[in-house]
Formats: sequence, C-alpha cells, structure tokens
Amino acid sequence: MKQLLIVAHGSRRSASNDEIRVLAGKIAEYLELPAQRVQVAFLELALPSIETALNDCFESGIDEVCVLPYFLASGSHVVTDVPREIAAVQSKWPDKVIKLLPHIGAADAMVKLIATAY
Amino acid sequence: MKQLLIVAHGSRRSASNDEIRVLAGKIAEYLELPAQRVQVAFLELALPSIETALNDCFESGIDEVCVLPYFLASGSHVVTDVPREIAAVQSKWPDKVIKLLPHIGAADAMVKLIATAY
Repeated sequence: MKQLLIVAHGSRRSASNDEIRVLAGKIAEYLELPAQRVQVAFLELALPSIETALNDCFESGIDEVCVLPYFLASGSHVVTDVPREIAAVQSKWPDKVIKLLPHIGAADAMVKLIATAY
Repeated sequence: MKQLLIVAHGSRRSASNDEIRVLAGKIAEYLELPAQRVQVAFLELALPSIETALNDCFESGIDEVCVLPYFLASGSHVVTDVPREIAAVQSKWPDKVIKLLPHIGAADAMVKLIATAY
C-alpha cells in the first residue's frame, strides 16, 4: 500500500493548518483514494510531526510513503530540514520506502497556475 | 499599465530567492508580457521589500499593481504581515490601486497540481 504524506511548514494559526488538512482530503478525493491514503505532517508549530506521521504509516502496515514537501521555494526547510527528518526515520525503518518528491514550487504547472490566478 | 507583484517569504538561501525570480520570468513569458510587468518582492530575508517594489512601480508610472502572496497557507504572513505592508504603501499613494489577490495555496487548481506531482 502506498501513501502520500504532504509536509507543510506549519503555523501558529490553526486555520492555516486546517487548510492543509482540507487540501489533503480534496487530493484523496481527486485521486479516488481513501482519505487515509493522503496524510499531512508539519515541520514545525503544528502536529503531527514528520516522524510521528511516518511512524504511524509504517506501524499500520504501509510499505511506501511518498513525501511531498509543500513548500514553494528550495529554502533551508526543503534542502536541509525535511531531508534530515526523513533520513532519521528511514534509519529506523530500513525495510520501508520513503520517496522524497520535489517541493511543490518546482512543479512545471505552477507557472500556469499563477498566470491563471492573475 | 498593470503590474503583477509576486510576494514570496524570502530565504537566507539566495538560490531559493532566485527560484522565485526565475518563476516571475516564466510567468511573464507565459502571459506574453514584458519581463518587467511581473516583479517579485520578499516579506523578509531578501530584497526588494514589498515597500520598495511597490514604490518602484508607482514611481515608474504604473497605476495598478496586483499583489500575489506566494504562500501556501493562510498563516500570519498572509493574514497580517502582507496586508499591513500593503496598507502602509497604499496610504502613501492614495491615487494608485493595489489589488491584493488570494494567496496561491487557495487556488482551486492546487489540488490537481499536487495530484499530478504525486
């Protein structure tokens, strides 16, 4: 079983974190997946942490998790922090697959999305 | 003359800020606009600031600027910081139009973009 984990920055504003949770639900719906196949985690300021979310996945029998850094630019969170947290979990679950996707800002379709918003 | 100003968070990593600048160029290209019609500004950690970018626009004769908060969730930067900076500039240029767009994470097309990345 595969799993998508959307990793967002996290905010002190709970409405902001809820926005990411709602988005995850919409993505599961769009992909016609059960809601639990698309989870969220937060780098800071909100829960669950990346470590907790990945542990939960693996403990529930998931073999592979695709981690999508939900960040717009390759700042230190994308380049250093998220990969470091993932590496730490991977070392505890050597038989599980954690696939780190490019951050969302790198998606080719972003140009069109912004142009449409404008 | 209208102008798009993409406001990103800003990073200590210059490569991250350059990523936003490159994106602005691609958006201008996509919209078939001169490159200078799509500018970037940063909330913190990088230049130009929102204030400087808007001042530059208005001093060069632009009458209306659409500001796109290039943020994924409505955290305090989107809800408080960006609007506050814009209001401060607007008070200095009462005859100019600053149109604040919804943050990019609110775009309906984001669900499909993420689903495709996955």
